[in-house]
Amino acid sequence: MRYRLTIEYDGTPFVGWQRQQAPDSVQQVLEEALAVALRHPVVLFGSGRTDAGVHAWGQVAHFDTDAVLDGERLRESVNALVRPHPIVIRSAEPVPDTFHARTSARQRTYVYVIQNTPHPPALDRDRVWHVRAPLDAAQMQRAGDMLIGKHDFSTFRAAAFQAKSPVKTLDELRVEREGDRILITARARSFMHHQVRNIVGSLVSVGSGRWTIADFEDAFRACDRKRGGETAPARGLYFIGVRY
Amino acid sequence: MRYRLTIEYDGTPFVGWQRQQAPDSVQQVLEEALAVALRHPVVLFGSGRTDAGVHAWGQVAHFDTDAVLDGERLRESVNALVRPHPIVIRSAEPVPDTFHARTSARQRTYVYVIQNTPHPPALDRDRVWHVRAPLDAAQMQRAGDMLIGKHDFSTFRAAAFQAKSPVKTLDELRVEREGDRILITARARSFMHHQVRNIVGSLVSVGSGRWTIADFEDAFRACDRKRGGETAPARGLYFIGVRY
Repeated sequence: MRYRLTIEYDGTPFVGWQRQQAPDSVQQVLEEALAVALRHPVVLFGSGRTDAGVHAWGQVAHFDTDAVLDGERLRESVNALVRPHPIVIRSAEPVPDTFHARTSARQRTYVYVIQNTPHPPALDRDRVWHVRAPLDAAQMQRAGDMLIGKHDFSTFRAAAFQAKSPVKTLDELRVEREGDRILITARARSFMHHQVRNIVGSLVSVGSGRWTIADFEDAFRACDRKRGGETAPARGLYFIGVRY
Repeated sequence: MRYRLTIEYDGTPFVGWQRQQAPDSVQQVLEEALAVALRHPVVLFGSGRTDAGVHAWGQVAHFDTDAVLDGERLRESVNALVRPHPIVIRSAEPVPDTFHARTSARQRTYVYVIQNTPHPPALDRDRVWHVRAPLDAAQMQRAGDMLIGKHDFSTFRAAAFQAKSPVKTLDELRVEREGDRILITARARSFMHHQVRNIVGSLVSVGSGRWTIADFEDAFRACDRKRGGETAPARGLYFIGVRY
């Protein structure tokens, strides 16, 4: 039997989603809780990695077991076991064996949150990027519009982690102001490592007036990470969900 | 010179606003930072106390000093000194000597946030009250409507801390559903200790169907704390602001 989990977590205390040599990955905490609940070792397949400090509202993962489980009871028992950690299974349900959390994914959505005020955040200090310079969301949207569609995203690709191809298709890039906040929504079949955070960093250069739209376009067309803006910090990024 | 501060804080690590024998009150942390910044002892007068775990987005306080200060620079230096703590001065400005953060206050606003889902919160575990039972916001609003105006609020007064009079005037009590959340906004010149949290606890009894509107009315009219519902936990309560 294959089960699909929808998972929310506060990324602050974790090294990221992926199990590593270092302790306290989200995957490891969940695998250990599942092993206790099911009384056998469990391997979780996530829909995608998240970096240290990146949050998730709708991470998806699957695992296999011989046991026949009630989704609601599975959710309750894993949530009880995981409790000291800020990780919660939002839902658990059986899926066909053909379902794969990573390879079946058709679209992933991320939201990046900026607090755009002269003073830093107190309540949301681990949850937003604090940008002091007043940001022009309409200008940021104009720059973002040129990223929609199929392009070479090398300018926004993490220098250290090379994806197979820098050519990706971005389905949506929306920049909205909500009071003191700027929300940036990005949707695509898949993203490269740091791609959203690198896009956000360059959009902020436009929003603050440090870059013109033409500067942004030049950087984008250069297909060179060294031409891109800074990498926005992990703490403002939320993995919102996956469409299958 | 008198200065007014608008203060945001995450109440989770603090014993509350008020300086106490125990360390780590918001007031103490701020007074110590102000003393360093101004090079003399500072006494802060807050607009009202908040309990351990209660958050603030717009707490207001004032203090006196002989120094002539630039509000923005004061804000920056205090925020830098306070940084390890989740406390932020949102604004600082000179006010007339007739201004008093507590006694000049004409209206205080609190918002209480409930996450109404079968699963607990991960990202907002210290920021919301998790209520599993589906809540009917319209029924809660109907119950809340009878609290508007001048009444004896003994049913919602903390048993241990007796205010001078249990008669208070509630200006607004709004219950709204936003997706998985219930937001309860309460506005009044002043509140008694635990008043908002006690009202919320009883409204949740109505929302979950455990109490009828008549049960709520009976409890309210009884003017007896023992007839009221539970006290909602501190972590869902936000002190939003003060009108002067």
